Amino acid sequence: MRWVYAFEEGSKEQKMLLGGKGANLAEMVNLGLSVPPGFTVTTEACREYMTGGALPNGLMDEVLKALSDLEGKMGKRLGEAGDPLLVSVRSGSPHSMPGMMETVLNLGLNEDSVRGLAHQTGDERFAYDSYRRFVQMFGKTALDLDGHLFEEALQHLVEKRKVTTEAELDPKDLRKLTDTFQGIVEREAGLEFPQDPHQQLGLAVEAVFRSWNNPSAQSYRRFENIPDDLGTAVNVQAMVFGNRGDDSGTGVAFTRDPATGERRRYGDFLRNAQGEDVVAGIRITQKLDEMEPDFPECHAQLIEVMDALERHFRDMCDIEFTIEQGQLWILQTRVGKRTAAAALQIAVDMVGEGLIDEREAVLRIKPSQLDQLLHPQFDPSASFEAIAEGLNASPGAAVGRVYFTADEAEAHAKSGEHVILVRPETSPDDVHGMIAAQGILTSRGGLVSHAAVVARGMGKPAVVGCAGLDIDVHGGQFAVDGRVVRRGDVISIDGTTGRVAIGEVPVVEPEPGAALVEVLSWADRYRRLRVCANADTGEDAAQARAFGAEGIGLARTEHMFLGERLPLVQRMFVSFHEGALDEHRRALDALAAQQKEDFAALLAAMDGLPVTVRLLDPPLHEFLPDVEELQDRVDSAGRIGRLMRRRSDRWDRRLLATARAWREANPMLGTRGVRLAMVIPDLYPTQVRALMEAAIERKRAGGDPKVEVMIPLTVSRAELERALESVAAAAEEVFDREGERVEYHVGTMVETPRAALVAGEIARVAEFFSFGTNDLTQMTFGFSRDDVEGRVMRRYLEEGLLPVSPFESLDIDGVGRLIEMAVVEGRAARPDLKVGICGEHGGDPASVRFCHEQGLDYVSCSPYRVPVARLAAAQAALDAAS
Amino acid sequence: MRWVYAFEEGSKEQKMLLGGKGANLAEMVNLGLSVPPGFTVTTEACREYMTGGALPNGLMDEVLKALSDLEGKMGKRLGEAGDPLLVSVRSGSPHSMPGMMETVLNLGLNEDSVRGLAHQTGDERFAYDSYRRFVQMFGKTALDLDGHLFEEALQHLVEKRKVTTEAELDPKDLRKLTDTFQGIVEREAGLEFPQDPHQQLGLAVEAVFRSWNNPSAQSYRRFENIPDDLGTAVNVQAMVFGNRGDDSGTGVAFTRDPATGERRRYGDFLRNAQGEDVVAGIRITQKLDEMEPDFPECHAQLIEVMDALERHFRDMCDIEFTIEQGQLWILQTRVGKRTAAAALQIAVDMVGEGLIDEREAVLRIKPSQLDQLLHPQFDPSASFEAIAEGLNASPGAAVGRVYFTADEAEAHAKSGEHVILVRPETSPDDVHGMIAAQGILTSRGGLVSHAAVVARGMGKPAVVGCAGLDIDVHGGQFAVDGRVVRRGDVISIDGTTGRVAIGEVPVVEPEPGAALVEVLSWADRYRRLRVCANADTGEDAAQARAFGAEGIGLARTEHMFLGERLPLVQRMFVSFHEGALDEHRRALDALAAQQKEDFAALLAAMDGLPVTVRLLDPPLHEFLPDVEELQDRVDSAGRIGRLMRRRSDRWDRRLLATARAWREANPMLGTRGVRLAMVIPDLYPTQVRALMEAAIERKRAGGDPKVEVMIPLTVSRAELERALESVAAAAEEVFDREGERVEYHVGTMVETPRAALVAGEIARVAEFFSFGTNDLTQMTFGFSRDDVEGRVMRRYLEEGLLPVSPFESLDIDGVGRLIEMAVVEGRAARPDLKVGICGEHGGDPASVRFCHEQGLDYVSCSPYRVPVARLAAAQAALDAAS
Repeated sequence: MRWVYAFEEGSKEQKMLLGGKGANLAEMVNLGLSVPPGFTVTTEACREYMTGGALPNGLMDEVLKALSDLEGKMGKRLGEAGDPLLVSVRSGSPHSMPGMMETVLNLGLNEDSVRGLAHQTGDERFAYDSYRRFVQMFGKTALDLDGHLFEEALQHLVEKRKVTTEAELDPKDLRKLTDTFQGIVEREAGLEFPQDPHQQLGLAVEAVFRSWNNPSAQSYRRFENIPDDLGTAVNVQAMVFGNRGDDSGTGVAFTRDPATGERRRYGDFLRNAQGEDVVAGIRITQKLDEMEPDFPECHAQLIEVMDALERHFRDMCDIEFTIEQGQLWILQTRVGKRTAAAALQIAVDMVGEGLIDEREAVLRIKPSQLDQLLHPQFDPSASFEAIAEGLNASPGAAVGRVYFTADEAEAHAKSGEHVILVRPETSPDDVHGMIAAQGILTSRGGLVSHAAVVARGMGKPAVVGCAGLDIDVHGGQFAVDGRVVRRGDVISIDGTTGRVAIGEVPVVEPEPGAALVEVLSWADRYRRLRVCANADTGEDAAQARAFGAEGIGLARTEHMFLGERLPLVQRMFVSFHEGALDEHRRALDALAAQQKEDFAALLAAMDGLPVTVRLLDPPLHEFLPDVEELQDRVDSAGRIGRLMRRRSDRWDRRLLATARAWREANPMLGTRGVRLAMVIPDLYPTQVRALMEAAIERKRAGGDPKVEVMIPLTVSRAELERALESVAAAAEEVFDREGERVEYHVGTMVETPRAALVAGEIARVAEFFSFGTNDLTQMTFGFSRDDVEGRVMRRYLEEGLLPVSPFESLDIDGVGRLIEMAVVEGRAARPDLKVGICGEHGGDPASVRFCHEQGLDYVSCSPYRVPVARLAAAQAALDAAS
Repeated sequence: MRWVYAFEEGSKEQKMLLGGKGANLAEMVNLGLSVPPGFTVTTEACREYMTGGALPNGLMDEVLKALSDLEGKMGKRLGEAGDPLLVSVRSGSPHSMPGMMETVLNLGLNEDSVRGLAHQTGDERFAYDSYRRFVQMFGKTALDLDGHLFEEALQHLVEKRKVTTEAELDPKDLRKLTDTFQGIVEREAGLEFPQDPHQQLGLAVEAVFRSWNNPSAQSYRRFENIPDDLGTAVNVQAMVFGNRGDDSGTGVAFTRDPATGERRRYGDFLRNAQGEDVVAGIRITQKLDEMEPDFPECHAQLIEVMDALERHFRDMCDIEFTIEQGQLWILQTRVGKRTAAAALQIAVDMVGEGLIDEREAVLRIKPSQLDQLLHPQFDPSASFEAIAEGLNASPGAAVGRVYFTADEAEAHAKSGEHVILVRPETSPDDVHGMIAAQGILTSRGGLVSHAAVVARGMGKPAVVGCAGLDIDVHGGQFAVDGRVVRRGDVISIDGTTGRVAIGEVPVVEPEPGAALVEVLSWADRYRRLRVCANADTGEDAAQARAFGAEGIGLARTEHMFLGERLPLVQRMFVSFHEGALDEHRRALDALAAQQKEDFAALLAAMDGLPVTVRLLDPPLHEFLPDVEELQDRVDSAGRIGRLMRRRSDRWDRRLLATARAWREANPMLGTRGVRLAMVIPDLYPTQVRALMEAAIERKRAGGDPKVEVMIPLTVSRAELERALESVAAAAEEVFDREGERVEYHVGTMVETPRAALVAGEIARVAEFFSFGTNDLTQMTFGFSRDDVEGRVMRRYLEEGLLPVSPFESLDIDGVGRLIEMAVVEGRAARPDLKVGICGEHGGDPASVRFCHEQGLDYVSCSPYRVPVARLAAAQAALDAAS
């Protein structure tokens, strides 16, 4: 095992071994750019360190050998009293984790070499300032001391000298400050500040390794899905100084504009400064072209380097450089971070310039970034105070006045106000208020709570489960952290980030733009997966089609039963429960008439493309009112006295009896889906008649309706067969009556583990499968998303017990295995079985990739995620082909 | 394909083809017994009929050929005017389904042959009575007419003739009645009564085939788990008549006593009668030996036949015989039905007699029958009116006075009353009342409702989900079908059957007896599966050991948290929720002290045998009070005024806040099991310390504690690993403190589908798996048992959408497949992995068989089911070996 590579021994392909920074330094050296020499300690050494708890055997020998080579190249020696070599020691992991890990600069300074540095540079102040900075940085990083101790000591001295900044301290003060710092090290770490530069180097390397596991690095990795066991490399590089006078300076350059993607060089420069001064943002920087008059040669060189690097990396590069006494040094480069808009623009431009091909352009866009472009957001330049943060349930920003009931929200919206509906949680009774509102904010519930699902379906911003909010609905106010927001106050919410602010935060509208359209059109060429949308209304369907949806993979008919139709649905239940069959029939017919319009709108919006209608899958509690609330209403009506009793009270009583009888302990696992259809036999036939009538009308009007009927929550072939018999009978009845037929297909959701386990049987009667991955995940894990998302899931993610929430990204090992079994066995039974997913995972890039790999035919997601899915599907196909 | 076999062509091995009756008739003919000749139409013909909807081609040709042979043998012809042959046409399926399908007697009678019969027998009355019976039976059976029409006409004639019974009608009346009956046929069926005996025969065969699918046959099959597609055979046999005078008669004989198993011949005889008269039970029968004086020869022959048949079938036989004018005919035989006690006695006796070996004795006992023997039951001879029937949640009968609250029940029990606790449903608050009661009756909940599970655990009779009951807890009464039962009234419940009766029904105590003990001791020799018990207290454990349990497979620690300890548990939650860590620690310590006693008792009762302790797996709602109830309490306390507020009100407020915060929409899929332990980190260590302290004390006292620690509701290896780390740390802490160690093993429940899907990973850290098949079934199907058991499951079973409730008998295709995967992959990762099940399926014979076949190591069930499991395990092993 070899632990150390000189820069010239590596290349940009070795990111896993040398880290991103090390690999790119190597590449630049090989390109002949002016890079301060140095060497890289490998990520393997770091992994070995993490396992063994100590630097691996032989590592320091290799480091010292590489150091000696470096000393040879530079003609200087580390710690030497004459013309000392100084080095920087920096982390550099395979994935960029900016600012997360440790850096030590000026390493090699000690009582001897500081004098040599002062002598060589003729700048005693510079030398001692460097020395005190090194002691401070080393103490904090390599010896784990509290950084405040050093800052306090510095502050103390500044005050004592009655100056305003440390820049006014003279060399003697700095010398003294260094002594003070060394005293702190001695007192706190219990050891003398190491004078041996080799010992310094060893400790610094170890500190960088150790910093791989510091808390901020860990949470960054969790956030970015970077594996914990990669480790970081360490780059040891000869120091150059941008702060050695007016012929020196330092800067950062981007080969294109990282905010817009515009093709122009972009960057910041600071004369007579070190890199940290640029980053700190205290001094005002010059633009890149402003440095030209003072550094014409260096500027020209830099332009050359930038062009060379962009050509070489075939991407926008981010370059750190330093000018030391008129000489340009390139310190590091990497592919530059950019906004989503810039990423698209750069990709499109580079295809135009012939730098990359369309495939590469498609692969370069991070699908998750697209969300930024597809929803309004808080203006990134706005300054505001977030008073709370909840779950980012439905993306987009909204501003409005706070109301606490759906009726109030609706009334105020009608009078022209923008309103935000704030509720502890929402229920079907609140849907009209949600429709009226600009956005929804709740204090309870997870990412599949009623509020979250309905808001996403409506494409309306929502922040849910915002536990910090103490909502007093009756009092008409909520409190958060001691602040009180009252009915009518303006707040802003950002469903993309989950943030909530008091007052109006400026919002920027999404601009998908030509570049996105172009990249997606390329993506469509390469993807194999069909991308459909989950949509319940003609409006949603039209929106989805505009986003490129190739059909509706999931139209949830229960959503059509909510809102103003809820009373009809409740009547249907109550009359069934009471055995009042005439009333039941009438309620069903009335629902059918309304549903027919919905179906007509869906078929119109998606004419010529498949529309998959899922028959009713209600969790009962969404349709029946809460028993306790209703009991209260009935009780108080009772108190008002008999004379006052009106028809509505009688209805409440009937509703109460039904709600009581159908109340469930675990509605998620209760009388839902096809089970309800087995209990209420007229339900599905009624829906199918409405659907087929709508389809026939469309066909007669010259349209091309493509109808698919989907049965929810199947557990067995017998059950599905029975449901499909009733579907066929109802359809034939309509066809006979109308003297006209439409072709249609029938299939089933696979959303119980059992359906996946007996998929081979089920496929004998189903023409298609649609994996309902939300429910499948809930049942496979035994996780009620509403219940575990807060307390349990957070803990599991924090502790690394789950790498990512299985509701965000498909659980490959468990749920994925069920899907794989079902696909293989379903297709074995029926080779032309069509298979897709219609859970929210359909819009998650990693899950889309899995769907591609498993040979699914389509994914279906919410309209706004359709572009994301198109891109992710193309990337999966391109990666698989490469 | 051959459809028809003469009796002499078959044998008793051909039950599947010829049905049980046909095969045994064939066997008897081959034994040379005096059997009226005939032939059998095969079950294959029936299956063909069910598929094709008509008698298969060629069938009638074969039937008529066989008939012609029969006519040859008898020297008579069907329908002939001279000396006519009459035949019976009877069903006979591979499994006995007594009385479920159709029979036609006296077939062959028409206007000609009736006269021949009258002439030949010299008994006109007999002839016309036979004819009118045939028309009636044929009309009802073969022509699907309403039987009441015939009975009304008969009744009409009896009244008109002013006689009391039909026996007093004279031949002319009967002749007339036959005409009336034929008129009914003509009017109702729209055809003349068929005179052609071949047509009669064809229609009768078809009627028997059709009757395979009549509703009562279908529900019988469902109840007995007989496949729907077996079909029935049809036996056509020459009629003999026991009603041809005093030298004739008919009877039923058992070779041993079917009630007790005693080795004595047993039977009933009726002189001058037909078989249906014996079955009808209207006339008083003679005992078998009472016929000897009048029929010495026939009696001696019968004894010979009985002995021959018992020797031949090596089992107790049930024989139907007829004496026609001095000649004994054996009409059919089969292995006789018997009580559980008789089955055991006969098996033991026959081993003693050398008729069968121990293996066969073990195989002959139906495990499910044992339940009768292990619990008290309503006296079978008692007559009472069942006012309602609920789910048979926990077997056994109980009698007591009705009380509607736990406190009342407890108070009255303390004063010496026997009480039945009647509740809409029970909760942990009711446990003290359940302990005090003789039995529990609820109107809501399914077979895993709180009431059902706790009652089974206590071995206490319970009838749950008795939906007919309208319980008014406050009014202190319940109504059922218009009858009202008040507080203090006596009722009787039978948890074995689910029946409820008003007043005291005599109860018979179980007498397992020596035969059971002997058969079980044989069973133990042959079984491979270890049989353990689910037990939570020392008492239960001792009971289980007495029933032969070889350890505790599941000790549920949450049950130890209920009852009087509930306040402590609630304090533990509330203090944790509030972050009151000292109070939390104290509450945990107090719980630990009490749990230690429980553990000590368990380890004592099972000394030397493994005791598997499952760490806390609470559905939260069992520990925290109902929010609405508590809110009411707090509200009403508030109304009483500030001065009155007491400490308990303050506590209620704290409890309310916690219950509100921890309330869950789907508690079954919520913060349970190991998830709770991840959220409340001190929980499991506290339990483990109590357990290890108890084990060390037992060891020091010279005992042999065998401890296993089980983690519930695991979904991933990482989660299990984390939980087991805390288990090990807590155990080591005790071992260090005490200076003493005990060996222990650690494992996990596999009760989420995901745990089964990633079992290979999980087995790397678990030493054993225990399949929690209740939860696994719930999650695999997405069935909340409490919610679907009533409405949904009943419908599914009735409609044949599920062959049997997956909560009663393991669902092999779905849940079983997960188990199989987990066993195979778990053992691949850890070859010595111990695997068992601890759901209630552990006591279900079919499920035990599956466990044997999958190579599980053990099953664990409730103490009372241990004998059932021992027997079922032996049978599975014997069947597999044969």
